[in-house]
Amino acid sequence: MARRDQPMIEFSGKKVLILGGMGFIGSNLAIRLADLGADVTVVDSMLAQYGGNLANLDGHQDRLHINFSDIRDSHTLSYLVRDVDIIYSMAGQTSHVESMHDPFTDLEINCSSQLSILECCRKFNPQVEILYASTRQIYGRPQYLPVDESHPIVPVDVNGINKYAAEMYYTLYHKVHGMRCTSLRLTNTYGPRQHLRDNKQGFVGIFLRLALSGEQLRVFGDGQQLRDFNYVDDVVDAFLMATGREDLHGGAFNLGHGDKHSLLEFVQTLAEFTDVSYEIVPFPPEHKAIDIGDYYADFSLFSDKTTWVPQVDLKSGLERTVNYFKTRQNLYW
Amino acid sequence: MARRDQPMIEFSGKKVLILGGMGFIGSNLAIRLADLGADVTVVDSMLAQYGGNLANLDGHQDRLHINFSDIRDSHTLSYLVRDVDIIYSMAGQTSHVESMHDPFTDLEINCSSQLSILECCRKFNPQVEILYASTRQIYGRPQYLPVDESHPIVPVDVNGINKYAAEMYYTLYHKVHGMRCTSLRLTNTYGPRQHLRDNKQGFVGIFLRLALSGEQLRVFGDGQQLRDFNYVDDVVDAFLMATGREDLHGGAFNLGHGDKHSLLEFVQTLAEFTDVSYEIVPFPPEHKAIDIGDYYADFSLFSDKTTWVPQVDLKSGLERTVNYFKTRQNLYW
Repeated sequence: MARRDQPMIEFSGKKVLILGGMGFIGSNLAIRLADLGADVTVVDSMLAQYGGNLANLDGHQDRLHINFSDIRDSHTLSYLVRDVDIIYSMAGQTSHVESMHDPFTDLEINCSSQLSILECCRKFNPQVEILYASTRQIYGRPQYLPVDESHPIVPVDVNGINKYAAEMYYTLYHKVHGMRCTSLRLTNTYGPRQHLRDNKQGFVGIFLRLALSGEQLRVFGDGQQLRDFNYVDDVVDAFLMATGREDLHGGAFNLGHGDKHSLLEFVQTLAEFTDVSYEIVPFPPEHKAIDIGDYYADFSLFSDKTTWVPQVDLKSGLERTVNYFKTRQNLYW
Repeated sequence: MARRDQPMIEFSGKKVLILGGMGFIGSNLAIRLADLGADVTVVDSMLAQYGGNLANLDGHQDRLHINFSDIRDSHTLSYLVRDVDIIYSMAGQTSHVESMHDPFTDLEINCSSQLSILECCRKFNPQVEILYASTRQIYGRPQYLPVDESHPIVPVDVNGINKYAAEMYYTLYHKVHGMRCTSLRLTNTYGPRQHLRDNKQGFVGIFLRLALSGEQLRVFGDGQQLRDFNYVDDVVDAFLMATGREDLHGGAFNLGHGDKHSLLEFVQTLAEFTDVSYEIVPFPPEHKAIDIGDYYADFSLFSDKTTWVPQVDLKSGLERTVNYFKTRQNLYW
């Protein structure tokens, strides 16, 4: 899908490194950058429980370099970052519940490794531009809506704390060392190549897999919790449009979508394209403890600077998502 | 010095663990708790570059248990925390400049190890009360004065980021796991047993050592930067008065002092007790990059809850400090 209406820098010939590039958003970004003529290297640890999946780059392997390695390994990282123009830091442990069961792995991947990326770049490629995938999870339970970037940061899980620490490193390394870092705070992202294999990655992935498998969904609470949803192509747009923008460096910007939907509306929209059935059940305690209630973002700060606005509404995004996965179930779960 | 005017719980017979207990504040706390009849175990890594110093507990060894180990070692930690009533988490990498040179050591000690303490306690002693020594450094450059706990958190160095991540862990483990954790955000603390050996620990220690050695001080900038200063006995009071207070758990509270002084006033007060000479010089770049300008705290939140107010003014505190060190230079630098 060409998106020629979006202003962005010339990517042709640019050397790009995508950390976590076999994962959901990273692989979509990698394919788009290859389409734009960039010289793309994908780095991924392929940790079994995370989003890396060979199927995500199926048919594109010849247009990309693929380097299997773990961002926790600073020795390989220090070579990978050299002579690169742009790094997209998309690798992460993304399960909120898992971060409470195994906080140290979350700390290593989401916090220590990000510091390691910055230190490697500071030493071996201080001019590189780094775009970091942060998360709305750092805000915790919204104290007002929509949530803008001035909202208090009160994470409700270890994942939110570690992601925020990493974001602060990126901001700090810009201020102190002049490094060219920008963070985008992603909201619920969905679409082709999403990690659907297990129940650890939030309700969107779980609902998609169960709906596509014809299994019954369980909606926690009353299903009236509001969310904003970004189709993955819109998120890829945001990363591309944030690239090369000196005025964004050192900043952290919300993504979001003008539309908001309840969880029930999400399920009902999904029902237009799948045979879905659901029941409404009380919150399990470990989910309740880290649930954030309603959330939707004010993304005008980013929109005003870049003209980015999401192009895909929930209905059309879910239709495309279902179409992608319905012939590929065996590759994803 | 007895401080019987301060309300606090009965410490006699309480089993207390002091992490970083051979360091500056930890050792002062250990001695006071021993005076109060507590069963005190001091844990310290004695890392050469930090504040641990055998001289700090000189004459008190028979009243305390001393366990040399590193809080980064979660195996020993998991034994040390068992059957303890109270843990004072005072161990830290405290040099702001050093945190920029070696951010990973700062991360390990100030962030990962604090998570490790919490995980060990959650598994082996979930009822323990934990008092965490946080820092004003998390606020960064004040956006208004005095700085209260609602002030934005914008750390200007890696140390501030890691200390804040740790504080967020303590808050989170209270909220999610019901653990009994309270953080105090310390301002400039000075007094007997302070780490004076090198130039990495901030201007107070540097000025004290140079003044006591009869060497010339260098005041950066114009010397008009304002600070609040807490004498260590007041900080020890604050930790003791915060202990056993369920209403503080999950919170983070500023310490501070009603009086504020410029750096020049600090030097001039020091000159009343030492032969001091100084010159005013421009900020070295690496200090300027992480300097925070004026800082003084609003500590009314903590004061209102506990009745704590500092008892010692700068003049009398510096006099006691100079008296402590002037016969012990060979033990401290």
